[in-house]
Amino acid sequence: MTHSQQRFFYEEEQQLLEEVLLHRRDVRGNHFKKEAIPKGVINKIIQAGLTAPSVGFSQPWEFVLIKDEVTKQAIKETFAEETEKAVKQFSNEKQKEYIKLKLEGITESPLNMAVFYKPKNTPVLGQTSMPNMGKYSVVCAIQNMWLMARSLNVGMGWVSILDPNKVKSILNAPKENELIGYLCFGYTDMFYNKPELEIKKWDYKKLQEDVVIQEKY
Amino acid sequence: MTHSQQRFFYEEEQQLLEEVLLHRRDVRGNHFKKEAIPKGVINKIIQAGLTAPSVGFSQPWEFVLIKDEVTKQAIKETFAEETEKAVKQFSNEKQKEYIKLKLEGITESPLNMAVFYKPKNTPVLGQTSMPNMGKYSVVCAIQNMWLMARSLNVGMGWVSILDPNKVKSILNAPKENELIGYLCFGYTDMFYNKPELEIKKWDYKKLQEDVVIQEKY
Repeated sequence: MTHSQQRFFYEEEQQLLEEVLLHRRDVRGNHFKKEAIPKGVINKIIQAGLTAPSVGFSQPWEFVLIKDEVTKQAIKETFAEETEKAVKQFSNEKQKEYIKLKLEGITESPLNMAVFYKPKNTPVLGQTSMPNMGKYSVVCAIQNMWLMARSLNVGMGWVSILDPNKVKSILNAPKENELIGYLCFGYTDMFYNKPELEIKKWDYKKLQEDVVIQEKY
Repeated sequence: MTHSQQRFFYEEEQQLLEEVLLHRRDVRGNHFKKEAIPKGVINKIIQAGLTAPSVGFSQPWEFVLIKDEVTKQAIKETFAEETEKAVKQFSNEKQKEYIKLKLEGITESPLNMAVFYKPKNTPVLGQTSMPNMGKYSVVCAIQNMWLMARSLNVGMGWVSILDPNKVKSILNAPKENELIGYLCFGYTDMFYNKPELEIKKWDYKKLQEDVVIQEKY
């Protein structure tokens, strides 16, 4: 294969990608099935993460695969603590909605994954002026895995109501690592056809005219 | 369409996604063509961004579309200044390689896009314990656009050797906005079949065994 070999994508192929993007959902514990995910499927998901773009080709990611129930329970405790603190920050009306939402699937999903940013101790090409770029590369890997999971009919949920330092300590993670995402994977009984928070009118869906600016503000 | 309507993806569809992920490249100025991107194609790319996941359905993104040559030149100046500072941070051997690399396509690409994080002034569901979550949502939108662009045979490059405050000032961006990515879009004369920095041996490609941890560190 030469370096200039091309892959041209056709309209049906572009439309298929569009469908995967549109059908990707944040899946929570009320829709995960216990059924284990085969190793080959997990590998394909991780492989998708490894093809993500990364600043200066630094690939600054580490993936911890968690099936152990004791670990999951410990993670769920930090979720409960952080939820208690979080709810108080919302207005009365939103508080009532908040407590009705199921926001994680830590114990219901067969596979959890903690995704870390692992900083380098030498300068990284492209990260010298924007120090967050390494963390953003890790997010690109998460999004790749999310899409690949969906195309394999596997649901994923991203849990962020956690104390990242407690998660690090539960997993014995090295001091320099930073938690970027805590993910839950599993087969599902259904996927919503729209984001759950849109269906439940937590917020409205933004359109291009709300967020696109021509040339300058 | 009911909320429980399902979309099952078949193996050929999963493989097509895999191909898009594998053929996505960071494109720089030596491979962009001047040819304008049709409005319908730009819309499809932005639409892909708008289907990205976002913490608490906050959709905290703003997209500035830039075609103006004067703006591009001003952005290119901050790139040149930051490059001068950056090169000095690398070891002698890496410096020689660094200066040979073409790292942006600001003026060669027909369309630039500055992507901002726009914070809310009320609490965001899911962002109370991990304040970076909103920025990470914007990165998910960028990765969706990158993949959609590739499936439309449009190249994209992410330029991060910029002073984000200078970019904000050039674009008159509101004080609270934070620059997440500065992107260049255009048709290309070719796509490399591997990341350019892998081909040029700037760094080696990591494998699953390098970055996957079972259960705990």
